[in-house]
Parts: sequence; C-alpha cells; structure tokens
Amino acid sequence: MISDKQAIRDLVATWMAATAAGDLDTVLSLMAEDVVFLVPGQPPFGKDEFAEHSRGMDGVHVEGSAEIEEIEVLGDWAFLRNRLTITVTPDGSGEAMLKRSGYALSILRKAPDGRWLLARDANLIGK
Amino acid sequence: MISDKQAIRDLVATWMAATAAGDLDTVLSLMAEDVVFLVPGQPPFGKDEFAEHSRGMDGVHVEGSAEIEEIEVLGDWAFLRNRLTITVTPDGSGEAMLKRSGYALSILRKAPDGRWLLARDANLIGK
Repeated sequence: MISDKQAIRDLVATWMAATAAGDLDTVLSLMAEDVVFLVPGQPPFGKDEFAEHSRGMDGVHVEGSAEIEEIEVLGDWAFLRNRLTITVTPDGSGEAMLKRSGYALSILRKAPDGRWLLARDANLIGK
Repeated sequence: MISDKQAIRDLVATWMAATAAGDLDTVLSLMAEDVVFLVPGQPPFGKDEFAEHSRGMDGVHVEGSAEIEEIEVLGDWAFLRNRLTITVTPDGSGEAMLKRSGYALSILRKAPDGRWLLARDANLIGK
C-alpha cells in the first residue's frame, strides 16, 4: 500500500503526463465533481469550464512540469504547493509559443474509494 | 463559545480592520510563524517579507473588503475562499490611486491556544 503523500505525487505525475498526451478524460478523472479553479483575472470556474477550455486548446501541445514544494496530509484532505512550468507548442512545430512558470496551491480530497482527487486549485501563473 | 467558522470569519474581519487602521502588529498576529504567501509573478514569501512590504506602504491607506465564498473546517485546519477588493489611497488624498479585486484561497491552522491563524495564502489579485 502506498502512502498518501506518494499517491498525491503520483496524481501530479499522472496529471502532467495526461496533459502532455492530450488525454483530457484522464485529467478530468483526477478532479472532484465540485472542483473549483482559481486563476488570475477571472472568476472561479469548475470542471465543465476546465474541459471546455482544454478542448479549445486543440492544435497545440501543452507540456507541464511540477516541482512539489510541500504536501501536507490532513486526514481525508491534503494541500499541495507546486512550482509549475508550462510550455505550449503548436502541433507540427518544434518551437514553443509560450513558456510560463509560477506557483500553485491546491487542495485535495480522498474519495470514498481511496483515490485522491483535486478539489480546489489556485494557479498563479497567469496568461 | 463561538464556532470555528465564526472564528475564521472574525479573523478575516479583524485582518481587514487592522489593515485599514495601519495596525501591522495585529495583522502579523493573525498569521502562523511559518506562513507562506503566494502571489502572481514572484516566488513564495513569508512573514518577515510581508512585514517589510507593509512597512514600505507608509504614506498610503489600504482598505480591503472580503466576501467569503467558502469555509471548510478540517479538524485543526481549514480552508477559505474569498473574493477580495483592495483600494489604495495616498494619505491626505480623497482619491483612490488603485482599486483591484480578485480571489484568494487560504489555508488556516488552529493554534494550541485555540486561535485560528493564516498558514498558506494564494492571492490572485496581482499588481
């Protein structure tokens, strides 16, 4: 049995790998139904808007990496601080059109089946 | 005895009132020693840098208001989502030089003496 911290590290790695592979279904499976995303310059949004925005990114390849700075497990909840780097490259091009890095504070919840899911996410990278 | 949620609402109100009054000592007393602040465009920082930055704001009056959108108490930890509005006015002037609004996700911890303290804070307002 893996520890909660390792399960959360695995969730981050799976998220990044699925994002790079364009596998939106897997990314969506890692978040709670009532997830709330906070990003600079717009109101909070949920899972449907996340999916819609991701589908609007067709034609580009998004690669991200996360350096985990802190994980605290609080029973069936946890929080996570990450330093993220995101690179966006148009399909068929070798040249990144955008590279950004910044920090994120996330809250996770353990589902009844034992899986950790993203529940709240404040991503400070901006546009 | 007041509930944890009410104590957290009171903390937010005290924070805003102390900020408006320029009472930095009170604001600092509301955060844990190991507090981490995340804001767009710079690395995470702690209590000393918060204090230094606030002292550098001499000559301006900062007024903030918070609409609490969510409080979840998780034992001795809690998280909080706020919509914040901040107005900065030079002393002796009636005209605000800056007005910004945005969202924040904060994590709080209950100290051994029962007081709630700010522990992690992601503020998406930006500059």
